[in-house]
Amino acid sequence: MAALEKILQQVKEGTLSIEEASLSLRKAPFVDLGYAQVDTQRGQRQGIPEVIYGAGKTAAQIEGIAQVLKKESDSPVLITRLSQEKAEQIQKTLPLHYEATGRIGILGSFPEPTGHGTILILSAGTSDLAVAEEARLTALALGNRVKAIQDVGVAGLHRLLSHLDDLMEASVIIAIAGMEGALASVVGGLVRCPVIAVPTSVGYGANFKGVTALCAMLTSCASGVSVVNIDNGFGAAYQAHLINHVKGTNS
Amino acid sequence: MAALEKILQQVKEGTLSIEEASLSLRKAPFVDLGYAQVDTQRGQRQGIPEVIYGAGKTAAQIEGIAQVLKKESDSPVLITRLSQEKAEQIQKTLPLHYEATGRIGILGSFPEPTGHGTILILSAGTSDLAVAEEARLTALALGNRVKAIQDVGVAGLHRLLSHLDDLMEASVIIAIAGMEGALASVVGGLVRCPVIAVPTSVGYGANFKGVTALCAMLTSCASGVSVVNIDNGFGAAYQAHLINHVKGTNS
Amino acid sequence: MAALEKILQQVKEGTLSIEEASLSLRKAPFVDLGYAQVDTQRGQRQGIPEVIYGAGKTAAQIEGIAQVLKKESDSPVLITRLSQEKAEQIQKTLPLHYEATGRIGILGSFPEPTGHGTILILSAGTSDLAVAEEARLTALALGNRVKAIQDVGVAGLHRLLSHLDDLMEASVIIAIAGMEGALASVVGGLVRCPVIAVPTSVGYGANFKGVTALCAMLTSCASGVSVVNIDNGFGAAYQAHLINHVKGTNS
Amino acid sequence: MAALEKILQQVKEGTLSIEEASLSLRKAPFVDLGYAQVDTQRGQRQGIPEVIYGAGKTAAQIEGIAQVLKKESDSPVLITRLSQEKAEQIQKTLPLHYEATGRIGILGSFPEPTGHGTILILSAGTSDLAVAEEARLTALALGNRVKAIQDVGVAGLHRLLSHLDDLMEASVIIAIAGMEGALASVVGGLVRCPVIAVPTSVGYGANFKGVTALCAMLTSCASGVSVVNIDNGFGAAYQAHLINHVKGTNS
Amino acid sequence: MAALEKILQQVKEGTLSIEEASLSLRKAPFVDLGYAQVDTQRGQRQGIPEVIYGAGKTAAQIEGIAQVLKKESDSPVLITRLSQEKAEQIQKTLPLHYEATGRIGILGSFPEPTGHGTILILSAGTSDLAVAEEARLTALALGNRVKAIQDVGVAGLHRLLSHLDDLMEASVIIAIAGMEGALASVVGGLVRCPVIAVPTSVGYGANFKGVTALCAMLTSCASGVSVVNIDNGFGAAYQAHLINHVKGTNS
Amino acid sequence: MAALEKILQQVKEGTLSIEEASLSLRKAPFVDLGYAQVDTQRGQRQGIPEVIYGAGKTAAQIEGIAQVLKKESDSPVLITRLSQEKAEQIQKTLPLHYEATGRIGILGSFPEPTGHGTILILSAGTSDLAVAEEARLTALALGNRVKAIQDVGVAGLHRLLSHLDDLMEASVIIAIAGMEGALASVVGGLVRCPVIAVPTSVGYGANFKGVTALCAMLTSCASGVSVVNIDNGFGAAYQAHLINHVKGTNS
Amino acid sequence: MAALEKILQQVKEGTLSIEEASLSLRKAPFVDLGYAQVDTQRGQRQGIPEVIYGAGKTAAQIEGIAQVLKKESDSPVLITRLSQEKAEQIQKTLPLHYEATGRIGILGSFPEPTGHGTILILSAGTSDLAVAEEARLTALALGNRVKAIQDVGVAGLHRLLSHLDDLMEASVIIAIAGMEGALASVVGGLVRCPVIAVPTSVGYGANFKGVTALCAMLTSCASGVSVVNIDNGFGAAYQAHLINHVKGTNS
Amino acid sequence: MAALEKILQQVKEGTLSIEEASLSLRKAPFVDLGYAQVDTQRGQRQGIPEVIYGAGKTAAQIEGIAQVLKKESDSPVLITRLSQEKAEQIQKTLPLHYEATGRIGILGSFPEPTGHGTILILSAGTSDLAVAEEARLTALALGNRVKAIQDVGVAGLHRLLSHLDDLMEASVIIAIAGMEGALASVVGGLVRCPVIAVPTSVGYGANFKGVTALCAMLTSCASGVSVVNIDNGFGAAYQAHLINHVKGTNS
Repeated sequence: MAALEKILQQVKEGTLSIEEASLSLRKAPFVDLGYAQVDTQRGQRQGIPEVIYGAGKTAAQIEGIAQVLKKESDSPVLITRLSQEKAEQIQKTLPLHYEATGRIGILGSFPEPTGHGTILILSAGTSDLAVAEEARLTALALGNRVKAIQDVGVAGLHRLLSHLDDLMEASVIIAIAGMEGALASVVGGLVRCPVIAVPTSVGYGANFKGVTALCAMLTSCASGVSVVNIDNGFGAAYQAHLINHVKGTNS
Repeated sequence: MAALEKILQQVKEGTLSIEEASLSLRKAPFVDLGYAQVDTQRGQRQGIPEVIYGAGKTAAQIEGIAQVLKKESDSPVLITRLSQEKAEQIQKTLPLHYEATGRIGILGSFPEPTGHGTILILSAGTSDLAVAEEARLTALALGNRVKAIQDVGVAGLHRLLSHLDDLMEASVIIAIAGMEGALASVVGGLVRCPVIAVPTSVGYGANFKGVTALCAMLTSCASGVSVVNIDNGFGAAYQAHLINHVKGTNS
Repeated sequence: MAALEKILQQVKEGTLSIEEASLSLRKAPFVDLGYAQVDTQRGQRQGIPEVIYGAGKTAAQIEGIAQVLKKESDSPVLITRLSQEKAEQIQKTLPLHYEATGRIGILGSFPEPTGHGTILILSAGTSDLAVAEEARLTALALGNRVKAIQDVGVAGLHRLLSHLDDLMEASVIIAIAGMEGALASVVGGLVRCPVIAVPTSVGYGANFKGVTALCAMLTSCASGVSVVNIDNGFGAAYQAHLINHVKGTNS
Repeated sequence: MAALEKILQQVKEGTLSIEEASLSLRKAPFVDLGYAQVDTQRGQRQGIPEVIYGAGKTAAQIEGIAQVLKKESDSPVLITRLSQEKAEQIQKTLPLHYEATGRIGILGSFPEPTGHGTILILSAGTSDLAVAEEARLTALALGNRVKAIQDVGVAGLHRLLSHLDDLMEASVIIAIAGMEGALASVVGGLVRCPVIAVPTSVGYGANFKGVTALCAMLTSCASGVSVVNIDNGFGAAYQAHLINHVKGTNS
Repeated sequence: MAALEKILQQVKEGTLSIEEASLSLRKAPFVDLGYAQVDTQRGQRQGIPEVIYGAGKTAAQIEGIAQVLKKESDSPVLITRLSQEKAEQIQKTLPLHYEATGRIGILGSFPEPTGHGTILILSAGTSDLAVAEEARLTALALGNRVKAIQDVGVAGLHRLLSHLDDLMEASVIIAIAGMEGALASVVGGLVRCPVIAVPTSVGYGANFKGVTALCAMLTSCASGVSVVNIDNGFGAAYQAHLINHVKGTNS
Repeated sequence: MAALEKILQQVKEGTLSIEEASLSLRKAPFVDLGYAQVDTQRGQRQGIPEVIYGAGKTAAQIEGIAQVLKKESDSPVLITRLSQEKAEQIQKTLPLHYEATGRIGILGSFPEPTGHGTILILSAGTSDLAVAEEARLTALALGNRVKAIQDVGVAGLHRLLSHLDDLMEASVIIAIAGMEGALASVVGGLVRCPVIAVPTSVGYGANFKGVTALCAMLTSCASGVSVVNIDNGFGAAYQAHLINHVKGTNS
Repeated sequence: MAALEKILQQVKEGTLSIEEASLSLRKAPFVDLGYAQVDTQRGQRQGIPEVIYGAGKTAAQIEGIAQVLKKESDSPVLITRLSQEKAEQIQKTLPLHYEATGRIGILGSFPEPTGHGTILILSAGTSDLAVAEEARLTALALGNRVKAIQDVGVAGLHRLLSHLDDLMEASVIIAIAGMEGALASVVGGLVRCPVIAVPTSVGYGANFKGVTALCAMLTSCASGVSVVNIDNGFGAAYQAHLINHVKGTNS
Repeated sequence: MAALEKILQQVKEGTLSIEEASLSLRKAPFVDLGYAQVDTQRGQRQGIPEVIYGAGKTAAQIEGIAQVLKKESDSPVLITRLSQEKAEQIQKTLPLHYEATGRIGILGSFPEPTGHGTILILSAGTSDLAVAEEARLTALALGNRVKAIQDVGVAGLHRLLSHLDDLMEASVIIAIAGMEGALASVVGGLVRCPVIAVPTSVGYGANFKGVTALCAMLTSCASGVSVVNIDNGFGAAYQAHLINHVKGTNS
């Protein structure tokens, strides 16, 4: 904290009065000190990609932000909710890798996976695939071992149960489902690792664009399930990544 | 239809003019004829209990209606949503049998079970028991073979699956669950008989007094599931009874 | 259950140790045994069509799935929620029969109708026709005798009542209505067979895209009514089909 | 308008300057003039009862207001939403007639009925009786011929249809129903007079305390139906009274 | 009712046995008699236009229905919710008069106005104009004297109050407003004639496409206000027409 | 009030009888007097722009209104919710200045800023910029000193806190945020000036088009926060302007 | 900020190393400095009462907090949402003044009123009185001139308009209304000062415990209206107080 | 799994035929094997308490279940949502330790804390204390190091920021808040560990019994936040416990 120490140095040297120093520190206490403290902690995690939320930004804006980010660090840059059209525009000037299903663009290469174990991504139906891919690519980009299994909705229970080994071995599970979202409850009842549930807007009528699945997951009869926003594959992967990298208090 | 034929007879005999007959028939066409047609059909099913919805009626009112019904037919009388207090009051003058869990009172004895097969009643948690009992007693009173299994929520999938034989053999299944209501989807995916789903108001917060379970059941990813109102154990049993007694078009 | 008996045989013969057998049985108990049991039951119903939910799938995807299904069995293949455009694309390579009003495509021919009796499909207004057609074609494809009557909304009660004979003779009734959905209550009060109510999204303002009709049907003052999701003609027909084919417990 | 004319008189006489008169008129233009205009119109209808909304007021407050009203006019005083307890307290000092079912108290006697014809009040179930009674007594107190028919819900269509004559002869109909509120649609389809629909909070689960009935009535497939708030028997009767007394533009 | 009388005649003449007549009458009692009764009542009001709800129908369908209706009676035909495009198509074969703002087409000419007095149509903002025009043209087509005043929202109270004479003289008032719908309460508090309130979907955010205006109108602090569905100008005019033509019980 | 004084003059002069004057004044008391009173008060604030809500009006309509307004006063004219297309059309005939981000057009130049102090406009994310710009330009056009700071959402608390000086010095703060709307609570807890919170429709899923932010702001744990409608940047600026110009009772 | 200056003093004196001082400042930068800054600003306003939200706290807890607050400053202590029972318990040990209607208790006496002008509190009905009293007492306790007018709902427009002078002279207006909340729109349209609208939970049915009034106020057709939470009389008064004391940026 | 191995042993020994063994295994394949597999995994974690959800169970029922659980294992038994009354009844026969604030009863003593680090429990207001205590005691009972900090709502940001060290050092954070739930967003923006957000039903009006806080937390602008049901302190602690004990895939 150069700035702070400089002030103290000046106080010590007598070149800055206590009143002036006091005023100067008081005026921006949150910022100059607090911000730095936070920032240092954040900055030290090398290799973690920067993330740009692509929806509602123009291709030009995304490109601009991406170039700034690339200049500042060696980390890959992840762009979520990126349409094919914008991706193609960006690809004219930047070496962007684009994954259409997950609507994700990546600048740079995926880091080596770290963390306690494997993140398992389960999705109930083929229509949930976009969200599952967003989660899978995000988890990879953040540096995790990832395994994804599709089409294991509870209406065909045997398909889900045939992957019981994978369920038992996962460190964290992301359970993605639309319609009535029952997958989260069934999985939560089978395993002992944390389950992050992602409701999707797949369905119609009384599904209410994912609200039914959301509420169903929140009221799950199984313990160990927490929930993120509708269609928020990125958020689930980010949370799973934090869990997979959880540290001890003194580590 | 004595009344109709009497009018026609009078017309034939000339004691009633065509104009008078026409007016008389036109005045109450829905009622005197239509009602009879409907009524006959209804009246012919002997032994089917009359049902009194007890909520919002005083003990005296219920007793009055029950006595009228008993006078008119030999059928048992079923009183649903009947509180202990009202039941005890009624028992002072009528030989009422009362089942506290299902909040049901019965005058007379259950009929011999008929119908195609067995109605299986599944309930997810012990808190869903009141609804399950209302369904069980209603189905019995309407003349069905009934089997009830409790506490088979999907968070403990093995408990449900240990009853797979019963599920496979049932003619109709009533699936009762609160919270996220996932039981209906899992059961619907396992069996090939009609499933009547009953959401219950068990739960809190995002359960919204059963609305989440209701919507989840309506958007079930499994086919063959239809739904009745929240906590409506009676309605589910009534529908299951109709299904269990479904007849051919010419029978 | 060959697999299970084979393991036991090997144990008996001493070619498989108890530990290995135990592990093998424990590892996939749900799948290898449970699944088979379910599957056999499902597989034995010949002629029942496979169903593809067409919404959210490309024409190519639908075509691919359809060809796989045709290879595996002689059953017809039913494609629901299929747009005209996709249908025309599929027709270039497959002999698809397409019904535009019900948005349904069929590969193969309808089976001979079986079941207890006739499924009667009532729809309230001409705008409910798409849902009614989805129900009618699904019921036909599943092997049922079907009768459909349109435009019998309760605002013109006499039109509905002029079909009283059909109502009385049906084994199951599907009542389809948007707006306030009163048709289900009126029909439920007239008949003694199970009524499956389908709310439609027809209406505006306080209809809330079918939610009002849905809730009205769930709170129907008539017994014997159960409900499926908004616009879910397929689901209603599937449930009606199961009811029309309901079997005894020992049959 | 004594006040206005007095000012003008003073202006004419020169005892009030134009400036002062202008200021005085400008200061309270809405009130002194506009109010009077409105008030005169209102005041001229003799015999119309004053109405006190009893809910949320103490017995003492109601009594106080009632006594003021009695002093000012000979009209009867109607107190709606009045509990038995408060009624009994008021009866200690005032000759209050109390009707428990409709929760209405009346000071003075009902006026002779006037108006075009008869207001017919239909209620679907016995649980809707409180609202029906509130409507009936209000309509009587406002000076109308009233006929009330109970328990004509659409699940027993024949009961409703047996009163077809009354329906056809009414000048205005108030249709009161809870649950799914289908009564309004069926009645609206049968008659050609205005129908005021009153949803009641009778029901449970997906009835949502009357909201389903409310929305169902608003989206009625029948024309000629308008709606008042849930349980608002008073409001329906008041509107029906206005309709029954509707006047020509120049009358 | 020729059919009924013919049967009775045959009975009288002995050419039809009582049994056959009874069967024939019983088979379709609702229809042939009940419908006729209703129909007669309806049919006798000459000049009342037939109404076609244009939304969700093709131009060809509308044209077909219109031509049938024109053949059957001399009454004008009103087509609501009719788009410019469809109107232009219909105009190729039928002499359709089209009003673009109210989205209404008319075949034939408006009848002479009848009824007790004048229907006054008030609309709060210029954006409510389409609904106001739908109401105005409907009321005219049904045979009423109509006066319409626009842009009298309560935020500019003086504009509304400057029309106090019109308000006082109206027999029925239709109050049309979006946003918070306060117009209905203010008007309801000023007048003594029935007010039909029409919420419109004008507004954004917490207006919820008219639901806020709808609920505000239902909970109006003024008596004498009843409400129709959001944007339902036709329904309000129809109800106002019935009120304007309300008859005595014996008239 | 020329009209009023003229009437009084005529009364004084005897050229108008008291009866005629009384009638004339009574006929339109609200309007001619009340309106004037309001109008005078409004009209005296020179330089305040007239505002046209552009959404739902054609370019021609906007142009017409603008030209009338320009003729009547020297004040600038502000057009909100104005699309680029309409702006370009209007620019063909009028010297319109258009700001695309805030969707605002201005005729004439901004007035000199007045008022107690500075209006500070904080927006949480870059996606809230359109609303922030609408607020900023409105506040400028109404004659206020304005400062705007973007992208100070609470997930990056240090960014917000680095502007603590600006927060402390503002006279009024407009806090604009979508998603969970937490900015209003955090800012409300830091400052002692009035905070006007504007929820935006930025977000997805459980954001419900701004309703979550709206409700969060209304239930803010900080005092001194009041709320306007979703995306209503204009309304917030208008309210902030009134606050910034608040006067004493006798001033 | 004694603590900060003490550290600087020690640095200057050399009794604290720069490293230690830096660490000490960095460890709690937000708190010890930032808080102080805020606190100073807050603390300087003498006489401003401390506020305790009484709901959900026991009488003992409230008493405890109150005694701490009294010890720390001479300011009065305001306790909101305080029940009669708790008030009486507290009065046993503390000289609490209790106002039952507004459910507010006060320790100490009201300060002299300051601020730009008068806060005018309008309430629509007598049932809104509790909220109005909470607002009135809060505004007084915070040091404002306050005027309160009750029972000026828009259904009796003349009552509101008779207070036009008070409306025109107010510096801030608090408009309190339940049911449909139209008061805010009408007042907002009449005045040019900021209006803080408070929806109340008064009403039933479609009022939805104040939500309808809340949404109506948010979508008000009048500018210059902002809204606080349902029944939040305290919040409105607090906001009005801030507005009434708004300062210039450099004052 | 003794049972399975016993069967295999008998098969090997020839005392059980393959047919009998096959039947026996097939009859309950899910249960005896599947359950065991799960159970083994579960059972191996010694000291983990069994949990009884106390709401909706009688004291006698809870006592019964508790005694069964105590017989089967040495683990402590945790009873959540336990009222004081029931606790006192249970204490008559069992050595129950009861914590009134968190409504939790414990049989047996807390295990030694294990896991990666510390679970930090933050609660926004004193009214959120019950939920915070439920979380704290659950986390302790499951074997975690726990630290709890109360009353750190965002309206007093400095209080939260003064605990920045604790926030930075936690392995998992549980953020508990009612009203607008902004705590989760602010904390999520400050830390890099997983945050489990718990909305509480604290608040009124637009808080909608916790729904606003719930939705706000789901739409948090900060990454790394997942959410459990309203007031679900137990569920948050359970999830935090799983995260704190997350294992590697091969560990």
